[in-house]
Amino acid sequence: MRKPIIGVMGPGNEATKIVTDAAYELGKQIAREGWIILNGGRKQGVMDAVSRGGFDGGGVVLGISFTDNNDNTSDGVTISVVTGMGSARNNINVLTSDIIVACGLGAGTASEVALALKAKKKVILMNNDELAINFFQSIDEENVLVAKSVEEAIKIIKKNLT
Amino acid sequence: MRKPIIGVMGPGNEATKIVTDAAYELGKQIAREGWIILNGGRKQGVMDAVSRGGFDGGGVVLGISFTDNNDNTSDGVTISVVTGMGSARNNINVLTSDIIVACGLGAGTASEVALALKAKKKVILMNNDELAINFFQSIDEENVLVAKSVEEAIKIIKKNLT
Amino acid sequence: MRKPIIGVMGPGNEATKIVTDAAYELGKQIAREGWIILNGGRKQGVMDAVSRGGFDGGGVVLGISFTDNNDNTSDGVTISVVTGMGSARNNINVLTSDIIVACGLGAGTASEVALALKAKKKVILMNNDELAINFFQSIDEENVLVAKSVEEAIKIIKKNLT
Amino acid sequence: MRKPIIGVMGPGNEATKIVTDAAYELGKQIAREGWIILNGGRKQGVMDAVSRGGFDGGGVVLGISFTDNNDNTSDGVTISVVTGMGSARNNINVLTSDIIVACGLGAGTASEVALALKAKKKVILMNNDELAINFFQSIDEENVLVAKSVEEAIKIIKKNLT
Repeated sequence: MRKPIIGVMGPGNEATKIVTDAAYELGKQIAREGWIILNGGRKQGVMDAVSRGGFDGGGVVLGISFTDNNDNTSDGVTISVVTGMGSARNNINVLTSDIIVACGLGAGTASEVALALKAKKKVILMNNDELAINFFQSIDEENVLVAKSVEEAIKIIKKNLT
Repeated sequence: MRKPIIGVMGPGNEATKIVTDAAYELGKQIAREGWIILNGGRKQGVMDAVSRGGFDGGGVVLGISFTDNNDNTSDGVTISVVTGMGSARNNINVLTSDIIVACGLGAGTASEVALALKAKKKVILMNNDELAINFFQSIDEENVLVAKSVEEAIKIIKKNLT
Repeated sequence: MRKPIIGVMGPGNEATKIVTDAAYELGKQIAREGWIILNGGRKQGVMDAVSRGGFDGGGVVLGISFTDNNDNTSDGVTISVVTGMGSARNNINVLTSDIIVACGLGAGTASEVALALKAKKKVILMNNDELAINFFQSIDEENVLVAKSVEEAIKIIKKNLT
Repeated sequence: MRKPIIGVMGPGNEATKIVTDAAYELGKQIAREGWIILNGGRKQGVMDAVSRGGFDGGGVVLGISFTDNNDNTSDGVTISVVTGMGSARNNINVLTSDIIVACGLGAGTASEVALALKAKKKVILMNNDELAINFFQSIDEENVLVAKSVEEAIKIIKKNLT
């Protein structure tokens, strides 16, 4: 009965418009596939963009909040899980996701990619530079995939959901 | 956009049939109100019963697993959050719930009631004896409520959701 | 090489002087036995008292902070573990302790007693009333012990450390 | 009263002998400085080596276990904190450390470096290649430092402890 959950990770305030535009579109298309969108829940950057995209696409948006309340939860989130655990919640994000997309990169997102590889989950890198791709592939070549567009990300997800 | 989340806590394998029957019915009625059901996600006792009731009532059932995988997730769970954190996840259960129902009692459930009172959340005790009711009311008289039936629990929830 | 760790739990600001005096003395005597004292780390109530007692007794005091920094860490703490996890850290307190003493009671302490019983750890209740003793013994008669004085608590700990 | 805590992170079973030799020596020298050594607590790789080095140097070794018991705790650990939280405990490792040394690299260690940078902590990379150094400096140039030897790492720690 469980529905597939796609984790979309990415920077907060420091996200560029290119990155948040991609995240919004990704959220919309994930929603249209009937998959659940998981993200860090905040009203900033990639988290907010993918949540709003998912909401506009008619989807279920699962926000995993690092604070102990919903004061800063994105309006696009339909189900808010409140952990109060700070960045320790990043491991919940990856364990809960069937597959992870990193859209852009910051320190928090990098920790989620690394935790996902530790848990032997597939990670799709989008809007990441060669340095980040090479680094993560040096840790786990098999599980680090690269998507050049939202469409390609959706295709890779579809192929990897069993 | 966030939907209300009702946490239903209770024993696993040691739950009696009276308690699991009540949990099943509670899950069904919560689902029919359009609220999300949160529970510990396992395929045992109150967790399994409230999940199946919620599923049969057409609802969204959010299981918060304490293990790091879904091997023991109830078939009634529609969204499974995988924490891998053992009983530390009990605090996520209470922070995420707008209101908590304790249906029966064991050590784990008692910890959730206490954590809920620590977080100043309302807790409804169902199928609990006088000793448990008196004890928890001695900790926080205002936030410990008692329901004698599923219908009464639903009424109290409705009154307390703002 | 591991040293025994005695967890001492109890209320923060709401602790009475009788309770904090007992906690101070308990910390001192645990330190003199050469055992490590674990507590919630804060500069309030039982946590502060047992830490200062342990420090004055020349012991190692392990504070497990629920915040993400040391701004409110008791001066008696010699090793501060910073979790940033809120009350989810209560489960770390009990898993890390070889035996737990609850000195007084509030909602947080009650959650730690319940989590300890869930983990099948021995809990010694000190400065607790009949209602609390009866309640916790109704959950797990075997693992709930009662001490009427600091000396009795030390004796029970000694007997139960293997 | 709090003592400085130096976190030493690194791979488990996949660590090479060069890396574990460096970790052992690092543990010994940290102990001789009177600082506490924090690590992941396991009986493998860098965790075991730095723990044994710290123990042989007469130091306090704080192991933060990801399991819920001490079955796999290194013999060098003098104080074992049992989290039962899986990789979510990595964030406790970094929040608890005043400064972090990454000795070698795997997915888990990479997550700890990223979490440390997220928390604005200094990280010293030892036995890491150019790719890893460049990647982490691209995330946070100011907080990523490089040590070519154990002696250099000790010097950098000394300079950065306030």
